Amino acid sequence: MSKIAIAVFLLSSVCFAQNPAAFEPASTNVWGAAYPLVDAGGAVEFRVKAPDAIKVQVNFWGNPKLDMAKQPDGFWTLTSAPLVPGFHYYTLVIDGAELSDPGSHSFFGGGKDASGIEIPERGSSYYLPQDVPHGDVRETWYFSKVTGSWRHALVYTPPNYDTLPNQRFPVLYLQHGGGEDETGWIKQGHANFILDNLIGSGSSKPMIVVMAYGYARRAGHADPDLSGKPFGSPEMMKAMQEMSQTFEDDVTEALIPYIDTHFRTLADRDHRAMAGLSMGGMQTFQVTFDHLDLFSYIGGFSGAAGQLVLGNRALDPKSDFQGALADPAAFAKRVHLLWLGVGTEEPAMMHAGILKLHTSLDEAHIKHVFYESPGTSHEWQTWRRDLKDFAPRLFQQAAQ
Amino acid sequence: MSKIAIAVFLLSSVCFAQNPAAFEPASTNVWGAAYPLVDAGGAVEFRVKAPDAIKVQVNFWGNPKLDMAKQPDGFWTLTSAPLVPGFHYYTLVIDGAELSDPGSHSFFGGGKDASGIEIPERGSSYYLPQDVPHGDVRETWYFSKVTGSWRHALVYTPPNYDTLPNQRFPVLYLQHGGGEDETGWIKQGHANFILDNLIGSGSSKPMIVVMAYGYARRAGHADPDLSGKPFGSPEMMKAMQEMSQTFEDDVTEALIPYIDTHFRTLADRDHRAMAGLSMGGMQTFQVTFDHLDLFSYIGGFSGAAGQLVLGNRALDPKSDFQGALADPAAFAKRVHLLWLGVGTEEPAMMHAGILKLHTSLDEAHIKHVFYESPGTSHEWQTWRRDLKDFAPRLFQQAAQ
Repeated sequence: MSKIAIAVFLLSSVCFAQNPAAFEPASTNVWGAAYPLVDAGGAVEFRVKAPDAIKVQVNFWGNPKLDMAKQPDGFWTLTSAPLVPGFHYYTLVIDGAELSDPGSHSFFGGGKDASGIEIPERGSSYYLPQDVPHGDVRETWYFSKVTGSWRHALVYTPPNYDTLPNQRFPVLYLQHGGGEDETGWIKQGHANFILDNLIGSGSSKPMIVVMAYGYARRAGHADPDLSGKPFGSPEMMKAMQEMSQTFEDDVTEALIPYIDTHFRTLADRDHRAMAGLSMGGMQTFQVTFDHLDLFSYIGGFSGAAGQLVLGNRALDPKSDFQGALADPAAFAKRVHLLWLGVGTEEPAMMHAGILKLHTSLDEAHIKHVFYESPGTSHEWQTWRRDLKDFAPRLFQQAAQ
Repeated sequence: MSKIAIAVFLLSSVCFAQNPAAFEPASTNVWGAAYPLVDAGGAVEFRVKAPDAIKVQVNFWGNPKLDMAKQPDGFWTLTSAPLVPGFHYYTLVIDGAELSDPGSHSFFGGGKDASGIEIPERGSSYYLPQDVPHGDVRETWYFSKVTGSWRHALVYTPPNYDTLPNQRFPVLYLQHGGGEDETGWIKQGHANFILDNLIGSGSSKPMIVVMAYGYARRAGHADPDLSGKPFGSPEMMKAMQEMSQTFEDDVTEALIPYIDTHFRTLADRDHRAMAGLSMGGMQTFQVTFDHLDLFSYIGGFSGAAGQLVLGNRALDPKSDFQGALADPAAFAKRVHLLWLGVGTEEPAMMHAGILKLHTSLDEAHIKHVFYESPGTSHEWQTWRRDLKDFAPRLFQQAAQ
């Protein structure tokens, strides 16, 4: 081992005993990083070395940037106001360059490996590792003829998967949001620990959870050139539609057949669910309502049928969703669960849109579940709570 | 889906058709990032937005920093000299702050989530995904009484693992280097693709590969306070020794029992190997020679017995390694493979140290394999080649 390696070894492993009073290094920090620190009330103390910078800021996405103060030792510091419990993305802005904090692990969001900070929620352990049997999370690769490429997916297998080689399991397809990727539900969401705890306590059936990469470009197609095209332009909408359709085809023609071959699944609609957050919720509604022959459980976490939630028009139960809602009794029999969730503090458009879909479904007598996460916005704490409410409702009606 | 999410969706998915002549976005880039670009000769073009910065540099670790040039549009640019094929860590230095490039995926090295760039090696596909059956890589969690904590490990299961539920497999324990973590062998090293290809062509036996977290703090012990202690101080050496011993105990008392319970292993020394790179090579020599009852295949990739490679003293075959080498014939019978590798361009101390260990083993008539990776330094291309040479030699002598 070189001296460099030894130095790095120590740097990253033995260190940093002296923290200020009530502040502790965040659980999202890299091993040994003393900063950022989180106090019991959720305030965060940041510190970054930038000796020659003129201006350094902390950017909690969706909020005004916070100016850091330069100290005589070349470090910049800031203590934030208390943050809502849960996971928050952030970046540092150093003289106009927006980059990640080297003290934080990185989490894929906003189309890049960004920084994140976890604020503990007092009394909540449902998304933390506990002394229950743990499932594995598998990285798996499948070749998709739809995209003409190898694609990477994460697959949670429940704790008893390997010890019961003759048992088959139902499957939940669980999608990330826009700008995130297939790693989000594990790294940011702790979906594996949520499922471990729900299965361990008997609240959820053991299930396989598949987390796929939500972007797809059709084999042989080039990316459209959107340079100079305004946000919301017809060209942009067409590009989105093409990607959505390609993703739908990838799920139904490549991913599901691969999962049903490669894992011991119960490969029928009674044992197949799909849910997703934000963009993933929109994809879920598209994929499942286009393929009710494949799915019988549907969940939208802060995202659902885009044309209804965002399009600001009323639900037409007779024609929307290819007419699947036209007969409420038949729908309730066919779709075992239709589930909608939103955080009370989400941006008005999102909150109002989901709420309107919920009330419209009520008015049309369409059986569904509506859940509001108190005090949380368009963020992972909302989606962890969604999964905690959603997962126990799955695969209870189907013959096991 | 909010407008923000839609914007991010597009930003990260539809884009960037127009690249300069022979330059292509690096395979290590995040989806849709136009920069950095790599040309056919291995030169890299960097571009980063830092409108208010005074000085921006690219830092290829271990090399002098390269000054970027400010452009009128607020972006900074640089085209590097051609780089050796393989994976290279780098960071950006913006007015003295060292951070990661938002265009690159992050790779854990140097104790943080750093940027990396992949330079293709012409004619080499052994570490790329090919049309062969693929194994999975599992994230798994085990509770260690040694450290008093949940620990995360990655486990490669070979392609036929699930379809042959009555078959058991040999196990290679494969360790990362100092400053890296258990994700390195997959994300930087592509160990899974290397094994897929070797197993697919019949060159390697199907095997399980376990990649553990190489740092460990004993349960109930606090980190030592090394503030003010110089590099190489007795306090620092003692801290390193304690961590090494804790890791050794974690491997033998917690990890191996967990793997042998949780996976279908062949749980004896004839079917158990260990190898590691740099710090991981040093750990391998410590763990395996302390436990020849558990291991019969040993690999040091740019790292081996620290006291010999770095200590600048001669091998004493009678007393070193607890006397295991005293009888060369008995050793060759007991240890099925002793393997050493180093890159020809590694720092002099590392190259000379491994070479000296190799010649000393020769002189003592200790059967072993020595491999030099041509043209590569203390870097992942060396270790990918090491694994390609090492893995086919495993588990060939043992009854399957």
